[in-house]
Amino acid sequence: MATTILRPYMSSYSKQLFPETPFNKRIVVTCAALDFSDTISKRPELSLSVGTHLIPHPNKVEKGGEDAFFVSNYKGGVIAVADGVSGWAEKDVDPARFSRQFITYASTFVEDEEVNYDPRRLIKKAHAATSCIGSATVIVAMLETTGILKIANVGDCGVRIIRKGQLIFSTCPQEHYFDCPYQLSSEDVGQTYLDATVTTVELVNDDTIIMGSDGLFDNIFDSEIVSILAAHLSVSDAAKALADLAHNHSKDLGFDSPHAREARTKGIELPSWKRFLGMKLTGGKLDDITVIVAQVKAL
Amino acid sequence: MATTILRPYMSSYSKQLFPETPFNKRIVVTCAALDFSDTISKRPELSLSVGTHLIPHPNKVEKGGEDAFFVSNYKGGVIAVADGVSGWAEKDVDPARFSRQFITYASTFVEDEEVNYDPRRLIKKAHAATSCIGSATVIVAMLETTGILKIANVGDCGVRIIRKGQLIFSTCPQEHYFDCPYQLSSEDVGQTYLDATVTTVELVNDDTIIMGSDGLFDNIFDSEIVSILAAHLSVSDAAKALADLAHNHSKDLGFDSPHAREARTKGIELPSWKRFLGMKLTGGKLDDITVIVAQVKAL
Repeated sequence: MATTILRPYMSSYSKQLFPETPFNKRIVVTCAALDFSDTISKRPELSLSVGTHLIPHPNKVEKGGEDAFFVSNYKGGVIAVADGVSGWAEKDVDPARFSRQFITYASTFVEDEEVNYDPRRLIKKAHAATSCIGSATVIVAMLETTGILKIANVGDCGVRIIRKGQLIFSTCPQEHYFDCPYQLSSEDVGQTYLDATVTTVELVNDDTIIMGSDGLFDNIFDSEIVSILAAHLSVSDAAKALADLAHNHSKDLGFDSPHAREARTKGIELPSWKRFLGMKLTGGKLDDITVIVAQVKAL
Repeated sequence: MATTILRPYMSSYSKQLFPETPFNKRIVVTCAALDFSDTISKRPELSLSVGTHLIPHPNKVEKGGEDAFFVSNYKGGVIAVADGVSGWAEKDVDPARFSRQFITYASTFVEDEEVNYDPRRLIKKAHAATSCIGSATVIVAMLETTGILKIANVGDCGVRIIRKGQLIFSTCPQEHYFDCPYQLSSEDVGQTYLDATVTTVELVNDDTIIMGSDGLFDNIFDSEIVSILAAHLSVSDAAKALADLAHNHSKDLGFDSPHAREARTKGIELPSWKRFLGMKLTGGKLDDITVIVAQVKAL
């Protein structure tokens, strides 16, 4: 195991292209021992220490926004976010009702025998129980005490995992086209648990999970997430700092946000007179912002 | 299950920010049924149909470059890439020897009982068997016939998974600092199987896995991978097309490659006189380019 200071060889290319960069003078962080052992059975039992923060869309503050989430300490720990699809408001349907009802049922069924601690089955059962009209993107993550994190994702909520100051895992958003995510719905045309992307990641002590609605990931870069986590020791402080930064970016018309970059990549353009003036599409995205920060801890 | 044409609700924000975009006129692809069933046992047995293509670094064509890979049809299928770290050449060590020896041992041990069809254990056993001086980044993926793909990754080789024309999974590169990846080494200071990021993804019929050395992912964007897969029916044609495009980009000094963008993000800069002239750091990265395209097929 690498416990001494590492001096790995860099590619010769690096020096050729960036001759002024003093690679060989950089200090390399000591690679401390991970607590993986050869077999799962030898690992310490792990659980989650969780902080959460939700900032509603500025126009939806009174009703608390349309996101919903829950956290449970069942087994290693369960975290989940649902984001009500706002287009329903045009049909005089409150988009918050579906996401909240889904999360209520998900938290109710989390220990259900039929669910068998499987995030896709939890999505199936909670979706089947909903009676409201509406739709929502949802993500559920369940930690086994052995360190296996199981994630099921429908739409553009997301998870990032940071280990030793480095992003080691990221979910990919599912969408039909730009800004139209996969969604569980009261209508037959929506997605179901069968459309969930299901992944697992082996976690170790001190890994940090960041789960959020798209309001977080549309307004903050992964590099900013890494920096904020490094600057905040407590999970609740980190959750608040992430939500605050995303919220500030969301109101900043000049910020070249992940959402604006994605829009440009997908061919979305400003009106032609603005392009003629040399302007480019920038800005954050006003939205509900839900953040769950969960740190893995050995019991 | 969503088998009819879906007309999901979009967020009201989209229409507000991009009023000229005719969202409601776009055709949405019918969401055909996935062959997930509720329990793994009900799924059809799955295997991989594999195409590969390797283009060596232009200066290393004669010796075939320093990447190595193997493909096995054991169980659902096994694919692996190792990329010899080029800095060893400065010590008169051929960087190709370590990566090739690692891959030779990995292919030898893939059916080993001790390995237990576990990619991290395969990395452990193959690394322990190496006797050459050198180091390499490595990635191994093993498909269970149930559809569970198990991935272990040390360094900046990578995997992308495409489902129905959409990226659903991506590994994250591990590095000590820019262009200095985690690496298995003949020296004690390197990483080991304990440092591997271990993930699983549940795959279904017709999913496509793209595995490559960093020479692929430094020179080609995920959106280009998606486009090329859509345009090539055969896995071998797709592998060649991906390698060719990455190779062309790698020689293009004006191409704003993923590698150049990452360099700028990490604060790497051009010499000051070039910056004074308004130039920015661009260009592909000359490197060995290994591509494995593996399509999931029901038996």
